[in-house]
Amino acid sequence: MSQGIREQRLREALHAANLDALICRLPENVLLLTGYWPMNGMSFACFPADGELLLLVPEGERAQAEAGRWHDVRAFGTGGVEHGDPLEAVAAQLRTARGALGIAGAAPRIGYEGSFESVAPPHVSGEGVASALPTQHMLAAVFGGAPADASDLLQTQRAVKTPEEIAGVRRAVAVADMGCVAFREALRPGVRECDVVAAVESAIIRRGVGFEGAHAVRGWATVLAGAASVDAGRSFQLSTTRAIAAGESAVLELGVVVDGFWADLTRTYVAGEPSARQRAIHTVVLAAHDAAIAVLRPGISGSDVDHAAREVVTAAGFGAAFPHQTGHGLGFRYHEDRPLLHPRYARPLAAGMVVTVEPGIYLSGEFGLRIEDDVLVTESGAESLSRAPRQLA
Amino acid sequence: MSQGIREQRLREALHAANLDALICRLPENVLLLTGYWPMNGMSFACFPADGELLLLVPEGERAQAEAGRWHDVRAFGTGGVEHGDPLEAVAAQLRTARGALGIAGAAPRIGYEGSFESVAPPHVSGEGVASALPTQHMLAAVFGGAPADASDLLQTQRAVKTPEEIAGVRRAVAVADMGCVAFREALRPGVRECDVVAAVESAIIRRGVGFEGAHAVRGWATVLAGAASVDAGRSFQLSTTRAIAAGESAVLELGVVVDGFWADLTRTYVAGEPSARQRAIHTVVLAAHDAAIAVLRPGISGSDVDHAAREVVTAAGFGAAFPHQTGHGLGFRYHEDRPLLHPRYARPLAAGMVVTVEPGIYLSGEFGLRIEDDVLVTESGAESLSRAPRQLA
Repeated sequence: MSQGIREQRLREALHAANLDALICRLPENVLLLTGYWPMNGMSFACFPADGELLLLVPEGERAQAEAGRWHDVRAFGTGGVEHGDPLEAVAAQLRTARGALGIAGAAPRIGYEGSFESVAPPHVSGEGVASALPTQHMLAAVFGGAPADASDLLQTQRAVKTPEEIAGVRRAVAVADMGCVAFREALRPGVRECDVVAAVESAIIRRGVGFEGAHAVRGWATVLAGAASVDAGRSFQLSTTRAIAAGESAVLELGVVVDGFWADLTRTYVAGEPSARQRAIHTVVLAAHDAAIAVLRPGISGSDVDHAAREVVTAAGFGAAFPHQTGHGLGFRYHEDRPLLHPRYARPLAAGMVVTVEPGIYLSGEFGLRIEDDVLVTESGAESLSRAPRQLA
Repeated sequence: MSQGIREQRLREALHAANLDALICRLPENVLLLTGYWPMNGMSFACFPADGELLLLVPEGERAQAEAGRWHDVRAFGTGGVEHGDPLEAVAAQLRTARGALGIAGAAPRIGYEGSFESVAPPHVSGEGVASALPTQHMLAAVFGGAPADASDLLQTQRAVKTPEEIAGVRRAVAVADMGCVAFREALRPGVRECDVVAAVESAIIRRGVGFEGAHAVRGWATVLAGAASVDAGRSFQLSTTRAIAAGESAVLELGVVVDGFWADLTRTYVAGEPSARQRAIHTVVLAAHDAAIAVLRPGISGSDVDHAAREVVTAAGFGAAFPHQTGHGLGFRYHEDRPLLHPRYARPLAAGMVVTVEPGIYLSGEFGLRIEDDVLVTESGAESLSRAPRQLA
């Protein structure tokens, strides 16, 4: 994979920020800097303002890291009984590489990811990775000065994707679509919420692994049905053993990762024949969804896109039942911190951004209904990346 | 749930460390301090040396947090369009609570989890939580001084489980056993590795949710078959679309979380009839496994337990094919940092610890074979918590 455009953007950003190098270990940022998504948490990417990019990986990941990469991959032993602290192995490699990296001088300015408190997992997602005091201290020891927090630079870089990165998100959305199809297939009267979750996640692995060359594929599904689906509007709740009744609607909230790139879709389907009330609410939410996508284009503010969706819901009399923002950036993570489609996000959108568009209406005691797609901001407007049906049944 | 024993141990540890309070946000440490496993990443636990424990949660988690808890739960709004930065909401709550917490004086000594760089996810495991600069700065702003890194205290506390915590791990292992049964059911000639993964993870959700009252249940399975299973010995590798051939062995590496408590099992089964070579290697690994469990008891060092297993493998001529440690602590996470059953871990084990016992033999070009159970150190010896068959077929 060519990382040419990303490399150029990063070099410009480093020079503008007066940083000599970025050193990152969060899997999502190693992906950003190198195009490689780490298998577990001990890979480090060192991206210098001028020298050669270095990717450090545990020996067991060397083959994956080297496949199709243009940059320098170095491996260190870890996990065997003869190995010591992996951070010390990383420190030794960084010391050795300082000359080649062009950061051999005293106290170079090193940027790191100090403010990431919400993090995407590596392949082995049962054990996440953080960047905390040990990494901070290791960088200070190697480079002779406290590293600078470059989190804002990283988040800004991530917000606008390159064509290669967009292709990664597009593939993740295609796999997420397979999960939505499985949701439709599994949803029938009498099935339990957790059975539908299992069917969706299982389909994502069975149909997703190998799809267009995908290696690491995983889905996180939450299915909430009937009155419980009202909770889909306020925070992530749990699917339960409750059986879904005929005529109940169910909301699927779905996060999917494919080789480091994320999709985030929501569909609401009905187990059986939709009621007039369900159809009426669905019509409003779908119209709000379409309205937001219709105005999405470079230069429009996040708040104006939120307004386009919210106006439709409010005009229909359900404004108070739409409590959350209309969308958020995504791609290197399930939820990125920018841009937001939020009433107070006044900054303009740009081509290459990928955002969710996810209006919803949540009626206490009745049901919740949300439709969420992942949408690319193009030069001329917007392209919805999902093909999963948005209809109720 | 009574947290009485844990509360007493923590208070003693805080006094011994001269800390006025622990404030934690990692889901695994919120669970340790309060018995509550957060749904997503914005819950904070404040455990003072003398005052009343405080649990801060987003409004959407209030009901779960309050269910059966003995401590003070306070909720704050987040996620709605009217809400601001959740860390500011947490800071405001902490300022208000300082008197009740008994830490109203100037610059109390606050301990936090500054060195956790490997972290267990919350329920919504697609988005992990870290404790980085923003939390550090928030604590400094609220309490008027940099917080102290209490990671070592926390890891020490976690190593020895209370009866309630052991019950949590026991239930997680029971659910992991269901995954091993599904592995056995799904493994047959012609099935793909990724299909077996899907079957195992799906069974864990379908059979696990609701089991003994379990709410949040998820499994992470890796299935490696034939020659690829040699890789099971060096790092986490990926299951692929490769079809498993008749007579091939397959290794299942399985992490399971049930309401915050973890199991970690490995089984090796054969798709069809095991060969003489497979049986011979299996006999050695099973004997090593039994040998380690036979010596496990309070007072023995981690290195002596490792030696008991390694001696069996070495005596059979396969010492060089057993590259990794014999086991590690687990419970609040998939892998805890202590105790270790490792050649250089000289410290003694204690009753209440839960460790994996997982010897393996990996024969390049042939296959890998590992058996892993989760084992409780009891007053008189050890109890293996898993009931899944350890035989090849």
